[in-house]
Amino acid sequence: MATTPLIEYEDASPEVRAVYDDIRATRKTDFINNFWKALAANPAQLERTWQGAKAVMAPGAIDALTKEFIYIAVSVANKCEYCIHSHTAAARAKGMSEDQFAELLAVIGMAHSTNGLVTAMQVPVDEVFKV
Amino acid sequence: MATTPLIEYEDASPEVRAVYDDIRATRKTDFINNFWKALAANPAQLERTWQGAKAVMAPGAIDALTKEFIYIAVSVANKCEYCIHSHTAAARAKGMSEDQFAELLAVIGMAHSTNGLVTAMQVPVDEVFKV
Amino acid sequence: MATTPLIEYEDASPEVRAVYDDIRATRKTDFINNFWKALAANPAQLERTWQGAKAVMAPGAIDALTKEFIYIAVSVANKCEYCIHSHTAAARAKGMSEDQFAELLAVIGMAHSTNGLVTAMQVPVDEVFKV
Amino acid sequence: MATTPLIEYEDASPEVRAVYDDIRATRKTDFINNFWKALAANPAQLERTWQGAKAVMAPGAIDALTKEFIYIAVSVANKCEYCIHSHTAAARAKGMSEDQFAELLAVIGMAHSTNGLVTAMQVPVDEVFKV
Amino acid sequence: MATTPLIEYEDASPEVRAVYDDIRATRKTDFINNFWKALAANPAQLERTWQGAKAVMAPGAIDALTKEFIYIAVSVANKCEYCIHSHTAAARAKGMSEDQFAELLAVIGMAHSTNGLVTAMQVPVDEVFKV
Amino acid sequence: MATTPLIEYEDASPEVRAVYDDIRATRKTDFINNFWKALAANPAQLERTWQGAKAVMAPGAIDALTKEFIYIAVSVANKCEYCIHSHTAAARAKGMSEDQFAELLAVIGMAHSTNGLVTAMQVPVDEVFKV
Repeated sequence: MATTPLIEYEDASPEVRAVYDDIRATRKTDFINNFWKALAANPAQLERTWQGAKAVMAPGAIDALTKEFIYIAVSVANKCEYCIHSHTAAARAKGMSEDQFAELLAVIGMAHSTNGLVTAMQVPVDEVFKV
Repeated sequence: MATTPLIEYEDASPEVRAVYDDIRATRKTDFINNFWKALAANPAQLERTWQGAKAVMAPGAIDALTKEFIYIAVSVANKCEYCIHSHTAAARAKGMSEDQFAELLAVIGMAHSTNGLVTAMQVPVDEVFKV
Repeated sequence: MATTPLIEYEDASPEVRAVYDDIRATRKTDFINNFWKALAANPAQLERTWQGAKAVMAPGAIDALTKEFIYIAVSVANKCEYCIHSHTAAARAKGMSEDQFAELLAVIGMAHSTNGLVTAMQVPVDEVFKV
Repeated sequence: MATTPLIEYEDASPEVRAVYDDIRATRKTDFINNFWKALAANPAQLERTWQGAKAVMAPGAIDALTKEFIYIAVSVANKCEYCIHSHTAAARAKGMSEDQFAELLAVIGMAHSTNGLVTAMQVPVDEVFKV
Repeated sequence: MATTPLIEYEDASPEVRAVYDDIRATRKTDFINNFWKALAANPAQLERTWQGAKAVMAPGAIDALTKEFIYIAVSVANKCEYCIHSHTAAARAKGMSEDQFAELLAVIGMAHSTNGLVTAMQVPVDEVFKV
Repeated sequence: MATTPLIEYEDASPEVRAVYDDIRATRKTDFINNFWKALAANPAQLERTWQGAKAVMAPGAIDALTKEFIYIAVSVANKCEYCIHSHTAAARAKGMSEDQFAELLAVIGMAHSTNGLVTAMQVPVDEVFKV
């Protein structure tokens, strides 16, 4: 199904293995998901993407679970099936309750609706929002 | 610029005024932003959309500021300029710090990037994510 | 603002003028909107696009106004501001009432909402829909 | 495959069953499609979405089949596979002919093409379209 | 799975067969991929689309492989799974190396990321870019 | 208009100035476009994005102009007005001819059209494309 091969740890070059090892250490699990195995066909891209994700998704001014909510929201609007599955799983692993998931869905649905309505009506931006 | 007229309070029917009054009371401000003034051309749609938004955006299992983060994330991915402006303003009004905004942007940028990469590579969903 | 020049009738080559003349004759107006003036930088593309549009938008099993509704719906979902403006104007010129526009908006808003919800929930397609 | 469970009638709470019963009565069929079964994990969202859909999709100034055309158009542009399948089935059930489907596809294809061209050329909106 | 039937050569009308024959002659292969078999339900649409594709994808000021890169880039951003598969296969058939594919992916990922960031920050277009 | 401030060189911190200096040296121009000035509100994000862009957009297995074509194609499909303007300007600066731009537009228009048609028809991926 993939348009790029999935590279397993056993078949990986030392630089790819180093990234896999860091993913495992950072996430405290042996599991490497398919996204990284596909990226591994280009070790520089794998390294850059992983370093970016590790920095961006770490808790900071926004906590780690909220970051997953944001990631899911973007992935739904961009219709990325893989990303929706993997980040919904990540959100559940980080403690997302079913009530939170229900509210996340409700906000996503509402935002899509008003995005469509606003665009169809070509509503001009209020001056106060431009400050 | 708009493809639908903006209806001011003074020119509004009683049913539209009732919604405007509820928006003002709920938000504790006299300001009615252009989205509602455009929707008012269809009072039933105005009423339905406002009741939905009021219910969905109220704090619950997810707090009100996090809901704005989610709303912004969807609106960016859907390229809704008005919605980005209005919900960024709403997030700031609800206390979003500049550090939080910077991290929100970083997650949005990262999600867009991996959404594109995953789609281009047609990465198959890992079995463990389907449970 | 444009990334491609707008070519006026006076400055156009004979092959571009022939398309402009056909647009004017088909639409029974002297007005040529900016889309065609931009396309005219590539006469073959102008000709191909106009012949396609003329064939596709002519009334057939679906009437001309309904085709504008469909065009607006796609253009909103694709966030094409120019297309929304031009096809909303075309729909009004073809007799769209304000009640029809209000219902068109309502369907567009509803579709965006359920598109988002379905995608977020990754709802499997019912077997009966696959026949 | 779903990221949220599908709730069958037998396992549903009384408030969910009430919505299912209204769907069955309104549509004159016992069949409940998966979208509603997924939404049922959040009864308030199910109720709100169903009430909105029932009101919006009822024939009015725009007939029921034309509303399905609009719904399909949005769903295609938003790449919602489930929605395309379910609303194409609904359109056929409401009498869509193969000639109409062929013309619907042709308009959708044309709109996507000009949406892309207009955006790439950043065509400025004609003044007459802004009135 | 399809919402429109796939029409095989044996079952095709003479006008559809004429297009199939031209596809085979142009591409120097007997293989007709499913896209054309689905389009064949509307012979006029099939003819128009094939003539457009043949003209547009032929090498000219831009070579045939680069045109496939552009096609893949659009198809990824538009989340068209079929198009990604078919044009990635076409690019490989036209000589795309694995290094080129890796760089294509990297540019696609980077563009998605900055598209999202720019939109979230609502960056104003620099005056020098508008000339 | 922006939702984030634009930071000029004079007002920038040493770490931001270091990135600006590298942009100027790499591009052999004093000009810093607004995207970087907006990103500068988050120096870590500025640094990461610039380093990624510098690595990804450098000529390699794909030349620098072709990379701009790919960037424009993604930006059009993602409806990023700023990105379309800036990368069209970059492509022209790197030698894009008007004939090349015309063909780029034609491929973008064709890809959007077939993306829409394929999605509407839910064409199944040919087995040979999955290898």
